[in-house]
Amino acid sequence: MKKIKPTILKGTRDFLPLEMAKRSFVMRAIQGIFERFGYVAIETPILSPAETILGKYGEEGDRLTYTWKDRGERDVALPYDLTVPFARYAASNWTELPMPFKRYQIQRVWRAEKPQKGRLREFYQCDIDVVGTRSLLVEAEVAKVIVEVFAALDIGDVIIKVNSRRLMNAVLGKFGVTEKSKEVIRTIDKLDKSGPKEVGRELNELGVAEPEKLMALLSPAESMEKTLAKFEAFDMTDLDELFRYTDLLGIGRDRFQFDPSLARGLDYYTGIIYEVVAGDSGLGSICGGGRYDDLTGLFEIQAPDSAVTEVSGMGVAFGFERIMLLMEERGLLASVKLSSDVLVTVFDKLETPNAVELYRDLIRAGLNAEIYFEAAKLDKQLKYADKKGIRFTLIAGPAETKEGEVIVKDMEKGTQETVKRSAAASYLQSIL
Amino acid sequence: MKKIKPTILKGTRDFLPLEMAKRSFVMRAIQGIFERFGYVAIETPILSPAETILGKYGEEGDRLTYTWKDRGERDVALPYDLTVPFARYAASNWTELPMPFKRYQIQRVWRAEKPQKGRLREFYQCDIDVVGTRSLLVEAEVAKVIVEVFAALDIGDVIIKVNSRRLMNAVLGKFGVTEKSKEVIRTIDKLDKSGPKEVGRELNELGVAEPEKLMALLSPAESMEKTLAKFEAFDMTDLDELFRYTDLLGIGRDRFQFDPSLARGLDYYTGIIYEVVAGDSGLGSICGGGRYDDLTGLFEIQAPDSAVTEVSGMGVAFGFERIMLLMEERGLLASVKLSSDVLVTVFDKLETPNAVELYRDLIRAGLNAEIYFEAAKLDKQLKYADKKGIRFTLIAGPAETKEGEVIVKDMEKGTQETVKRSAAASYLQSIL
Repeated sequence: MKKIKPTILKGTRDFLPLEMAKRSFVMRAIQGIFERFGYVAIETPILSPAETILGKYGEEGDRLTYTWKDRGERDVALPYDLTVPFARYAASNWTELPMPFKRYQIQRVWRAEKPQKGRLREFYQCDIDVVGTRSLLVEAEVAKVIVEVFAALDIGDVIIKVNSRRLMNAVLGKFGVTEKSKEVIRTIDKLDKSGPKEVGRELNELGVAEPEKLMALLSPAESMEKTLAKFEAFDMTDLDELFRYTDLLGIGRDRFQFDPSLARGLDYYTGIIYEVVAGDSGLGSICGGGRYDDLTGLFEIQAPDSAVTEVSGMGVAFGFERIMLLMEERGLLASVKLSSDVLVTVFDKLETPNAVELYRDLIRAGLNAEIYFEAAKLDKQLKYADKKGIRFTLIAGPAETKEGEVIVKDMEKGTQETVKRSAAASYLQSIL
Repeated sequence: MKKIKPTILKGTRDFLPLEMAKRSFVMRAIQGIFERFGYVAIETPILSPAETILGKYGEEGDRLTYTWKDRGERDVALPYDLTVPFARYAASNWTELPMPFKRYQIQRVWRAEKPQKGRLREFYQCDIDVVGTRSLLVEAEVAKVIVEVFAALDIGDVIIKVNSRRLMNAVLGKFGVTEKSKEVIRTIDKLDKSGPKEVGRELNELGVAEPEKLMALLSPAESMEKTLAKFEAFDMTDLDELFRYTDLLGIGRDRFQFDPSLARGLDYYTGIIYEVVAGDSGLGSICGGGRYDDLTGLFEIQAPDSAVTEVSGMGVAFGFERIMLLMEERGLLASVKLSSDVLVTVFDKLETPNAVELYRDLIRAGLNAEIYFEAAKLDKQLKYADKKGIRFTLIAGPAETKEGEVIVKDMEKGTQETVKRSAAASYLQSIL
C-alpha cells in the first residue's frame, strides 16, 4: 500500500499529551463548578438532521454549517453551536427533564470556513443554560457561576459587562426606531470596532432621529451608578432586580460593569445580556450570553400542552479556547503534568524479570508507575522519563540486585539514593 | 418561523442527565486506571481529510465511512474508528512523542449504516495503544490494565481469550495455506457463528488440505495447559514469554483462556490478540485488540529516518456501550446520582430574599446546593428535587423566618427536622 502524508485539515487540531492534560485540567475545574451549582451534563448527537440546524442562525450561520447528503437520501449536518441543539434536546425530552432545567454541555462544534488566524473549523464550546423560567434569579445565579468558575481557574480579575435588551429596545423606541431595531442593535454593537463617526453615519441611514444623542446616552459615565442614573426615565426593573439578587448572593458590584451599548450580535437575545472580560488581557470576551425567549419555541415541544408552562431560557457560553490562551499567557498551567510519577528502568535482558517484579510491587502499592518496555540504553530510558515529566526513575543493575537494592533517581532535583528494593514502594510513597 | 419536529437520526442518541452521569462515572473510572498506568490522553480531529480514513479498513469500512465534499473542494470524512486516526497522529507527531508512546483516546466514531438493533451510527470508542516497540511486556501490561479496569468497574469475572497470529500462520502453513491466509483466518473466525460443517466446507474451497484436522487442532482441550500442549511442535515463544511476564505481574493464569481458533476479523493483526468476555453475560466481547505491525506505516512518518526505530504497535478497544449495558444489567450503576445534595425552596415572593441568603450561606460552606428559581407551589418544588435526586430540601415560611429557623426535609427517609437557620449549613455538612 502506498504511504500517504499524515495530514489534518487546517483549522482542526491534534492535541499533544501535555496540551491535552492542560485542557482536561481546565475542563474538569469548570465542570466541577457547574456540578456544584446543580447543572447537569448532557450530550446531543453530532451527526444531525440538517433541518434541525439550518435556518436558525441567519444567512451567515447557514453558509458556515457543514451539511451534506447522507448516501443521497437525506440532508445531514454538523452542529454550528450548542444552543440550538440544546433547544432541540429540550423540546424532544421536555417531560423527562426536571423543570426549570439546568444543563451544561461541553462538545465540539464546526464552522465551514476558510480557516485563518484564530478561526477554527472545529472547536469546543462549553455552555450552561437554564430553560423553563423567566425568573431573574437565573441571571443572578449564572453571574455567580461565572465568578466561581474564573476563581477556580485563578483568573480573579474578571468583569461582567451587563446590559438589558429590554432597556435598549425602550431607548431605541424613544429615538424613533421601531422596525429596524435588530439592524440598529447590530450597528451599535460595532461601536468599539468602527468608532462613533462610522456608526453615527450608519445609524443615520437606518433612520435614527438623533444618532449623536443616542450614542451619548449609550456611552458609559465615570461610575456604574452614574451610568445607571442616565436611564432613570426608563423602566429599569430587570436590572434593579438582578442587582438586588446579586447583592444578596454576595457578588460585589465592582464585578459588574453596566454597559448600555453592549448589544452582542445574535438576534435571539431578549433580556439581560452578559459579556465577560479578564482585566487588561486584551483577549476580548471570554464568556457571554443572555436571556432568550423563543429559541426552544423553534421546535415542537414533545409534551402535552399543559406540561409546557414556560420556554424562556438564559445561558452563557464559556470561550474555552480563549480561556486556555489566557491561562497559558498568565502561566497558570505551568504546574500541570502528565500522570506517571515513577519509571522502572530495565538494565538488561537478564534483569528484566526483576524489573517487572519491582514494577508490580509499585503498582500494587497504588503508585502511578511505568516500566520501560525494553532493555534499551539507560540514557534513552531516562530521556523517556524526562519527556514524560516522570519525576523518579528506578535503576537496578546486577550489583544492586545482588545487594537487594535499587537506585532511586530524582529527575527534578538531579539527586539519587540507594534504597532497599523491598522498601522502594514505601520510600516513594513517603515522598509523593 | 414555522416550528419543526425535534428529530434526531436513528442510531444517534440524546443522553439524558442520569444516563450521562452514569456514563461519566464509568468513563472516569476507566480513565483513572489508564492514567495510573501512564497512558496519556490525546484527541484527533473529527473532520478529517478523506484520504486519511478511506482505504484502510477494506471494502466494508470504506462503504461505512461518512464522506462528502467540503464545499465541492476536497473530500472529507468522519472517523470510522480510533486506531487509524491514532496511526496518523503518531506519524504526524513522531518526534514530539515520548517513545514507546502509550496513549488512550475516548471519542465518538461513525458508521454510515442503516441502523438496526445494537448497530449505531454514532458511538464512543475507548482505546489504549502502545506504539514504537515489539516488546511483549506491552501485551502483558495491557492484560494488567484490562484486569484493573474491570476490577475498578466491579466486573470481577472477566476472561481474556488469547491467541497468537504468528502461531496461527505457522499452523496454516503446515496445512498448505500460504496465499489465502487472510481469507482462511476470516473463515475460522466464524466457527462460533457458522458451526464446523459450514466452516469446513468453506475451508475446503479455500484449498485447505485437511479442514477437519485443522479444526480439531484449533479447538480447545479441557484445560489451558492441554490446549497449549497440542502445539508443542510449533514455535510458541511469544505465548511463552507473554505468560512469563503476566505471571510476574501477578495476573493469575485463570484469567486467560488460550483459544487457538480466536482470529478477530481485522486483517491488520500480526501477533498476540485478545478478546475479553465477562463470565456468563452472553454479551460477547467487551474488549479486544492485538499486535499490529504495519498500521503506522500506512502514513509517512514525519521524522528524520534515524528517529524511527520501530513502528510496531499493540492496543485494545474497550467496548464502552457494551460495558454500560453489562453494568446496568448487573445493577452496578444504581448508586450513581446527579450532583446536587440540597434544594432551597422559595416559600413565596416575600420570602425570596431570605431564601437567596440561605442559599448563599450553603454554597459558601461548599455544599452542592440549588435554589428553586420561582415561588411556585411547594409541591412542584419538591417534585423538582425528587426528579433530580436531591436528598435534602429546605423550607422556610414566615413562621420559620420569624423564629430564625428552617425545616430540613430528608427526601430519602421522608423525615424532617427544624434547625436554626444559622446552623443549617453545618447541620447538612455533618450528615453529607
